[in-house]
Amino acid sequence: MDRERMINLIGEIIPEKKRILTDKADLYSYSYDASFGVYVPDVVVQPKETEEVAKIMKLANQYEIPVYPRGQGTSLSGGPLPVKGGIVLDLSRWDQKLEIDAEDMVAVVSPGVITGHINAKAMEKGLIYPPDPSSSNVATIGGNLAENAGGPRGLKYGVTKDYVIGLEVVTPEGEVIRTGGRTVKNVTGYDLTKLIVGSEGTLGIITEAILRLYPKPAASQTLMALFDDLIASGRAISKVLSSGILPAKMELMDQASIQAVEAYQPLGLPTDVEALLLIELDGHPKAIADEMLKVQEVCKEVGAREVKVATTDAEAKELWKARKLVSPAIVRMKPTKISEDATVPRSKIPEMFQRLKEIREKYKVDLVVFGHAGDGNLHPNIIADKRDHEEMKRVELAVQEIFEAAIELGGTLSGEHGIGTMKAPFMEMELGKVGLDMMKRIKESWDPKNILNPGKIFPEPGQRLVLTDE
Amino acid sequence: MDRERMINLIGEIIPEKKRILTDKADLYSYSYDASFGVYVPDVVVQPKETEEVAKIMKLANQYEIPVYPRGQGTSLSGGPLPVKGGIVLDLSRWDQKLEIDAEDMVAVVSPGVITGHINAKAMEKGLIYPPDPSSSNVATIGGNLAENAGGPRGLKYGVTKDYVIGLEVVTPEGEVIRTGGRTVKNVTGYDLTKLIVGSEGTLGIITEAILRLYPKPAASQTLMALFDDLIASGRAISKVLSSGILPAKMELMDQASIQAVEAYQPLGLPTDVEALLLIELDGHPKAIADEMLKVQEVCKEVGAREVKVATTDAEAKELWKARKLVSPAIVRMKPTKISEDATVPRSKIPEMFQRLKEIREKYKVDLVVFGHAGDGNLHPNIIADKRDHEEMKRVELAVQEIFEAAIELGGTLSGEHGIGTMKAPFMEMELGKVGLDMMKRIKESWDPKNILNPGKIFPEPGQRLVLTDE
Repeated sequence: MDRERMINLIGEIIPEKKRILTDKADLYSYSYDASFGVYVPDVVVQPKETEEVAKIMKLANQYEIPVYPRGQGTSLSGGPLPVKGGIVLDLSRWDQKLEIDAEDMVAVVSPGVITGHINAKAMEKGLIYPPDPSSSNVATIGGNLAENAGGPRGLKYGVTKDYVIGLEVVTPEGEVIRTGGRTVKNVTGYDLTKLIVGSEGTLGIITEAILRLYPKPAASQTLMALFDDLIASGRAISKVLSSGILPAKMELMDQASIQAVEAYQPLGLPTDVEALLLIELDGHPKAIADEMLKVQEVCKEVGAREVKVATTDAEAKELWKARKLVSPAIVRMKPTKISEDATVPRSKIPEMFQRLKEIREKYKVDLVVFGHAGDGNLHPNIIADKRDHEEMKRVELAVQEIFEAAIELGGTLSGEHGIGTMKAPFMEMELGKVGLDMMKRIKESWDPKNILNPGKIFPEPGQRLVLTDE
Repeated sequence: MDRERMINLIGEIIPEKKRILTDKADLYSYSYDASFGVYVPDVVVQPKETEEVAKIMKLANQYEIPVYPRGQGTSLSGGPLPVKGGIVLDLSRWDQKLEIDAEDMVAVVSPGVITGHINAKAMEKGLIYPPDPSSSNVATIGGNLAENAGGPRGLKYGVTKDYVIGLEVVTPEGEVIRTGGRTVKNVTGYDLTKLIVGSEGTLGIITEAILRLYPKPAASQTLMALFDDLIASGRAISKVLSSGILPAKMELMDQASIQAVEAYQPLGLPTDVEALLLIELDGHPKAIADEMLKVQEVCKEVGAREVKVATTDAEAKELWKARKLVSPAIVRMKPTKISEDATVPRSKIPEMFQRLKEIREKYKVDLVVFGHAGDGNLHPNIIADKRDHEEMKRVELAVQEIFEAAIELGGTLSGEHGIGTMKAPFMEMELGKVGLDMMKRIKESWDPKNILNPGKIFPEPGQRLVLTDE
C-alpha cells in the first residue's frame, strides 16, 4: 500500500502526531538491534493504549502490512528487526503502569517498563522479581516476555516464563484477550500465557502482564574459586548441586575471558588458571553460612587453586566485577561480538568445552566462554571484525558447528536469547520437520495473513546464517 | 465403522491379544472416572510402545474413530471419559521406564509410572520430584501431565508443569515429535512442552517425559494452628508470606471439615473453631527452626486459640492426619462428593469464604471447605446423594454459583483438576468468546478431524453442567 496513505490511516488511530515517526533518521534508529542486519521500516508508531494496538493490527490485517513490536532493541537474535518493512510498534514509551500488590504477591506492568525497575520496586515491599537478564537495566519487560529472557538467577529461580501468570494480549488480528490472571494456579483450558511468552512477538502483542513475586531472601553470600583445570570446575558444579545445595547463581569464566578482563582492567586475577567460578548463595543467614562452608570444602576437594569468600557486600561486589567486565573487555579486542547461548544438559558441560576448544582451533576464531554453567547455559562468544569478510565466513562456520555440537550433546540452539532471524535456518535440525510444522500450524491459525513479526523463528526457503549487516 | 473390523485392524497393530479388551465387563470398567457420567467405549487398547500409539492414531484418523487416552482414571473433571465411544488407550500398563539421572537432575519416565514412585526413587539419590497431588500413590504421571496436577507443595514448589522440560508426544495425526529436552533452559521456538502439559489429552499423547528434580531439603517441620475466626486464619496466611517465609505447604480446614473428621475418627480437635491451619516448612534445619518461631508468633498475634509445633516426625504425621481424613470422612456423610477447585487471588480468600457461606445457605447444600489456602486454591466440596434428583439440582446451581463467584473475584474455574466435561459449559464465562476461540484454533490446527479426546474443554452447543451418571 502507498506509504502516505498508511501514515494517514495510522494518524486516525494515534491522536498525537509525535507518536508517529516518519523521518529518515528516526526510521534508521529502529532498523537494527543488538544482533545483525539493518532493515528500515516504513513508519514507527509509539502506542500507549491497548485499543491503539488493536486498531493498528486491524488496519495492518486489512492492508496486509507487516507489524514489528519492539522494546529497547537489545535483542541478540533479531527479534524486533523489521525484515519486511512495514510498521514498527515501539512499546518502550508505554511504561506508565508498575503496581506491586504485596498481598497477592504480584506485579502488574505495562510493556515498556524497564525490567530492573520491577525488582527494585518489589524490594521496597520485601519481595523480589527474580529474572535478571544482564540487560535488565536497559531492556523492557515486554521484550523480556517476548523472548522469555533468562539470567544468572535462573539456576535457582527459573526464567521469565516461570513468573508470568497473566497477560493482556492483542492478537495478530487485532482482538484483545486476557490469559491467566492473578492466581498462581490456573488450568482453565490451554496455557496461552506460557505459549505467548517466548513466542518472540509472533503470536500476539503483550499490552499488560501480571508477574509473580517471591519473598526476598534474608541474606546472600558470594564465593570465588579458581581452577587450574576446567574439568575440575565442572566437577565442583556437579558436586555442589548433588550435595543438596541450590545456589542462586553459578557463573563460569574460562581462561580467555579472564585474560580479556585482565588486559582491559587489571583485577589481579591469575591469567594462567583455566576457569573461575562465582557462586552466590541466598536464603536464611544461618543456612547459607553452613552451606558456604560445604561449598568451600567441595571446591577444595576437587582441586581448586584458590577459594575466596566475600565477608561483606562490598567484597561480594568486588568478586562479581570480573564477571561484569567480560563483555566490555572482549569488545575491546575486536569490535564485533557474536554472543551465543547454545545450552547443553548439565552433565555434558565438560564435553561441550572440549568441542568448543576444537572449534576455536579448527576455524582460528577468537572464542571466549563464560556464562551460567550451573544450568548448562554457556555463552560462547566469538570476537571478530565484521568488516573482515574472510574472518566472518570462518565465524559463520564456527557458529554453525557450535549449534551442531549443542544439539548432538542433547542440548538446544538457544537457552535464553531466542531464535529470531539468526537461528531460524537451524530450527529443523533441532525440532525435525514435524516438530517445526506443529509450531507453524499454531502461527498460521492465529495469524493467517502472517502480519505479526513475519520472518522470525520459521526459516524462509533457502535461508542461511548471515553475520553481516548487508 | 464396523466394530469387528476396527478390532481386527487394531489386532494388526498390537501383537498381544490380551492388550486389546473387548469384553463387556472390561469395557464397563473403562466407562467412568472419579467425576460423573458413564460412557462405554467400543474397545480398550493397552499400548506399550510409541510406535503402537502412532499407528493407532493413524488408523483412527483414517476411519475417524475417537481416541481417549487414560491413566488410572482418577480424574475429577472427566478427562478420560470416552464420551463419544471409540477407542480408549489405557496407558497405565506402560510403566517400564523410571530413570533418575542425578547429574542432570532429571527423571525420564514412561506414561504409566505412578507419580509417587518418581519421588520415592528420586529421594534415594538425594533429590525430590515436588508435585504431590493427593492421588499421587494411585495416579499415573501421564494423567498428571495431561491435567497439570497440583498438590499442597505447589505453594513453594509449583505444579506439574513447572517440572516438565521435555516430552515425546504422538500428535493427533499419529506423528511422533520431541519437545524440549534435558536442558533446564530452552527457548527454541514455541513452548510446545508447556502447551501439551495441561491440555487434557486433546493435543497429543505423551509417551515419555523428562522431569526436572530438585535437591532434597535437609529437614521439615509442621505446625497446627486453631482459629476461632476464619478471617483471622486468612490474616495469618498473608502475614507469614509477607514476612519473607515461603512454607512448603499451608493447608486449611473449615469448621465443617473439622466436624466431619471428628465424627468419623475422633482426633480430639475442638469442633467449635472456625478454622485449622497446617503449615509445613522445609529447608535447612537452622533456618526452619528460626522461621517456625516467627510463624508461631504471627499465628498468636492474629489471635490463634492454640498453636502446636510437632517436635518429631511422628508428631508431624499425627498433625497431618486431620487433613488426610477429610475426604474419607465427608463421604461417610453422604455417598456423592462433588470436589471443586475454583481458585482466587490470595487476597480474596476471606471474600470467597463469605460467598461460599452464602451459597451453602441459599441452596441448603452440605458444603465443606478445605485445601491449599496459601495459594488461593480452595477445595469447596459438596456432599450429596446422586440418587436424590431434587438435591442434585440444588447442587448443580450451587456449583455454578461457586464458579461465578471465583471468576467475579478475579479467579479461575479450575486451579488443578482441569475442565474436562464438567466445566466446559463455563469456559466462555472466564475466557470470553475470542479467548476460547484462540484455544480452539490450536486444537483445530493440530487435530483437524477432532479425533483425540473429543468432547473435552470446548463446550458443545447447548451443553450444561450435569452431575448425574445418566
